Amino acid sequence: MDNNKSNQTIDRRDFFRKTAALSVTAIAGTSLISSNAKADDPAIMHHPSWGQKWGDPVTKNRYGMPSKYEHNVLRRNTKLLASGNYRASIAVTPIQESMGIITPNGLFFSRSHGGVAHVDPNEYRLMIHGLVEKPIVLTLEQLKKYPSVTRTHFIECPANGGQEWRGPQFNSIQFAKGFMSCAEWTGVYVKTILEDLGLDKEKAKWMLTEGSDNSEMGRTVPIDKVLDDAMIVWGQNGEALRPEQGYPVRLLLPGWEGNLCVKWLKRLEFSSEPWYCKEETSKYTALKPSGKAIQHFYANEVNSTVTSPSPEIDWTHLEDGDIIEIEGLAWSGMGTITRVDLSFDGGKTYTNAKLKGLVLPKAWTRWSFMHTYKKGEQLLLTSRAMDDAGYIQPTIDQEVSVMGVESVYHRNAVETWEVTATGEVNHVQMRTPGGVKNA
Amino acid sequence: MDNNKSNQTIDRRDFFRKTAALSVTAIAGTSLISSNAKADDPAIMHHPSWGQKWGDPVTKNRYGMPSKYEHNVLRRNTKLLASGNYRASIAVTPIQESMGIITPNGLFFSRSHGGVAHVDPNEYRLMIHGLVEKPIVLTLEQLKKYPSVTRTHFIECPANGGQEWRGPQFNSIQFAKGFMSCAEWTGVYVKTILEDLGLDKEKAKWMLTEGSDNSEMGRTVPIDKVLDDAMIVWGQNGEALRPEQGYPVRLLLPGWEGNLCVKWLKRLEFSSEPWYCKEETSKYTALKPSGKAIQHFYANEVNSTVTSPSPEIDWTHLEDGDIIEIEGLAWSGMGTITRVDLSFDGGKTYTNAKLKGLVLPKAWTRWSFMHTYKKGEQLLLTSRAMDDAGYIQPTIDQEVSVMGVESVYHRNAVETWEVTATGEVNHVQMRTPGGVKNA
Repeated sequence: MDNNKSNQTIDRRDFFRKTAALSVTAIAGTSLISSNAKADDPAIMHHPSWGQKWGDPVTKNRYGMPSKYEHNVLRRNTKLLASGNYRASIAVTPIQESMGIITPNGLFFSRSHGGVAHVDPNEYRLMIHGLVEKPIVLTLEQLKKYPSVTRTHFIECPANGGQEWRGPQFNSIQFAKGFMSCAEWTGVYVKTILEDLGLDKEKAKWMLTEGSDNSEMGRTVPIDKVLDDAMIVWGQNGEALRPEQGYPVRLLLPGWEGNLCVKWLKRLEFSSEPWYCKEETSKYTALKPSGKAIQHFYANEVNSTVTSPSPEIDWTHLEDGDIIEIEGLAWSGMGTITRVDLSFDGGKTYTNAKLKGLVLPKAWTRWSFMHTYKKGEQLLLTSRAMDDAGYIQPTIDQEVSVMGVESVYHRNAVETWEVTATGEVNHVQMRTPGGVKNA
Repeated sequence: MDNNKSNQTIDRRDFFRKTAALSVTAIAGTSLISSNAKADDPAIMHHPSWGQKWGDPVTKNRYGMPSKYEHNVLRRNTKLLASGNYRASIAVTPIQESMGIITPNGLFFSRSHGGVAHVDPNEYRLMIHGLVEKPIVLTLEQLKKYPSVTRTHFIECPANGGQEWRGPQFNSIQFAKGFMSCAEWTGVYVKTILEDLGLDKEKAKWMLTEGSDNSEMGRTVPIDKVLDDAMIVWGQNGEALRPEQGYPVRLLLPGWEGNLCVKWLKRLEFSSEPWYCKEETSKYTALKPSGKAIQHFYANEVNSTVTSPSPEIDWTHLEDGDIIEIEGLAWSGMGTITRVDLSFDGGKTYTNAKLKGLVLPKAWTRWSFMHTYKKGEQLLLTSRAMDDAGYIQPTIDQEVSVMGVESVYHRNAVETWEVTATGEVNHVQMRTPGGVKNA
């Protein structure tokens, strides 16, 4: 494809030649400033609004908040997600505004099954029992005495993209892909506590994890995961968990379904058999075309999305020849992202994108690609990620052929944004790879 | 030293043997729970307060806030720091509560010279001129078109610990060491823009950086630093900068004095000579015993502190034989932390601590050491960090012998917490290494 080919040939020198042209445009516009004209530009040198009066004292916000101009960067919900009940619902992260791999706590997606509980940390207790030599009830202070670890991991609802099995439901990246966030977590490995309490390693095969909110959210976790990297966490991005994230304590199963990472954690019980809780029988199973459901569905598979452009971040302001950074996220619950490819033709052909910044296991990984925009070009932007467990994202046709369209959960097929001739961006779906779109 | 020696011999098995004893204590207290007694413990299974009523809907806080129970985790100021003016002052970070290496934006330390400005991003302009081929005035949208990078770095005020030259002034880690924080920053390298605008590399030796707040904060930066890793940043921990951090744009000079990282950035000018701004002549210089001052003082030297225990996090609740994690932070504006040592005798003898989690250049690095507490023991806890530039923290005597006690800035001598026989923790100073304390 011509467009794709031309992108592959942009090198560093081209980029700077081009942005130099952008500079000239800016200068030719309204803002030509020579190096000795500074005193003559009142707009820059003596701004009337914020440069000539006192600012706020540093004591004003002892806990700071975003600028009032960022009022549109928020978690969101719609009736379509809420099913009429905003307590057993989700508020999704504006990933179109994300930068780096940390989601600020105020924007971390929030899912609850009976509303956000407000737990008094002084009354908080964690019971650990079942197939352990020394069952125990820990206060928060006792729990925090265990040696801590800090790890950066995403948490994703398995329903992320779940509205999109039959075709695009939301012309929005926030609603189509914002059921996830990524943070730096601090807590203790469950295996550290179990070494202390004496797990019966012969018999114990499953762990029940249960929340203290009114839904008593319960799930069963296989012991291999527990002894691998399961954590009990109390810290998120350098401070206590927020109430929406299970304050004061939640379970973290890096890379696995968010609902398994039980919030307001009150109990861990070890057993030789699984529990078959409500939330893993009536819900969080994946119905297959055969009529049978996958029950034990844990790790979120390798996935990716283009965050800029996206339905919320369009290209209507771009001029012909502008060089623009296409950015996105990739993530895998199975391991570390090794590669991201980008297609301009909806998945017919791909070119390699660049991984940016820290690349950590089971964490958001940012990627980018420098693109020369041609006025009027029509693109079908599709990203495709690979992980070190050897997995690669399927097409939607490949995924539907196995899973049907009733499974709701674990949709990780590639997704496509259409860039129109005027630079608008729409969510579309390529039902035949590289073929007809089904908007 | 006996205590020190015994610490070195704690191995993993000892730790678990000991915490097992702790478990038994807890069980013997009020909370003995056998594996089949769960239905009989109403305190755990049917908590009356938060487990039996609806929680908040997920739509309640579209931008979330900490739990009400965390009301004491705040930035702080005192008259001693403010000199009667809370606009040209600082609010310091509760690093005693820090976890991992990310400081949440709401707790990031805040320093301003004329108050916190509130800049309208639509009216924001950045002028870049002087010895460049194509001077320019950029809108925020134009600035963000440059290819971005994300990096984790601390920012530290050079006055961090500056009250402590003569001896401990604050019996508080927040006030003695909280003039710093660490975040994930997103922006563009200044060198990327300069490659675009055409820097006159023959002549340009200095960069003026100037803020658009009422103080017009101005500093001069040598060109080598500019072309190394200087960034213009608009993102912090995955969202827009907060107003206190220079919204919408600040300069970031990784590892260098915080006041050089000019906030509400409006202008960069390139020249062959330095500017000698007010803030680098009357202020931010270090007066030496000779009566002369060091003017060009940039990178914050290798440093460390014990965060737990500390004056705010005491050990009065510990029992004899408890195993406790001593934690702290280390950082260097010159590079990457390679090693942290911990002393129990105020610096006479040291033992090696463990670096925890991510170890990144010019970023906070967390370290820890497992310690067996002996009821009644009296300790002098001193940490000492080393970096890959080959630097190691001096004693206060070594530092004072060179700098005197008038320099205010760049104090990076080791500091000491005294643990009393009752487990209280005080800030002391060891004027003769390993010798008499001067509390």
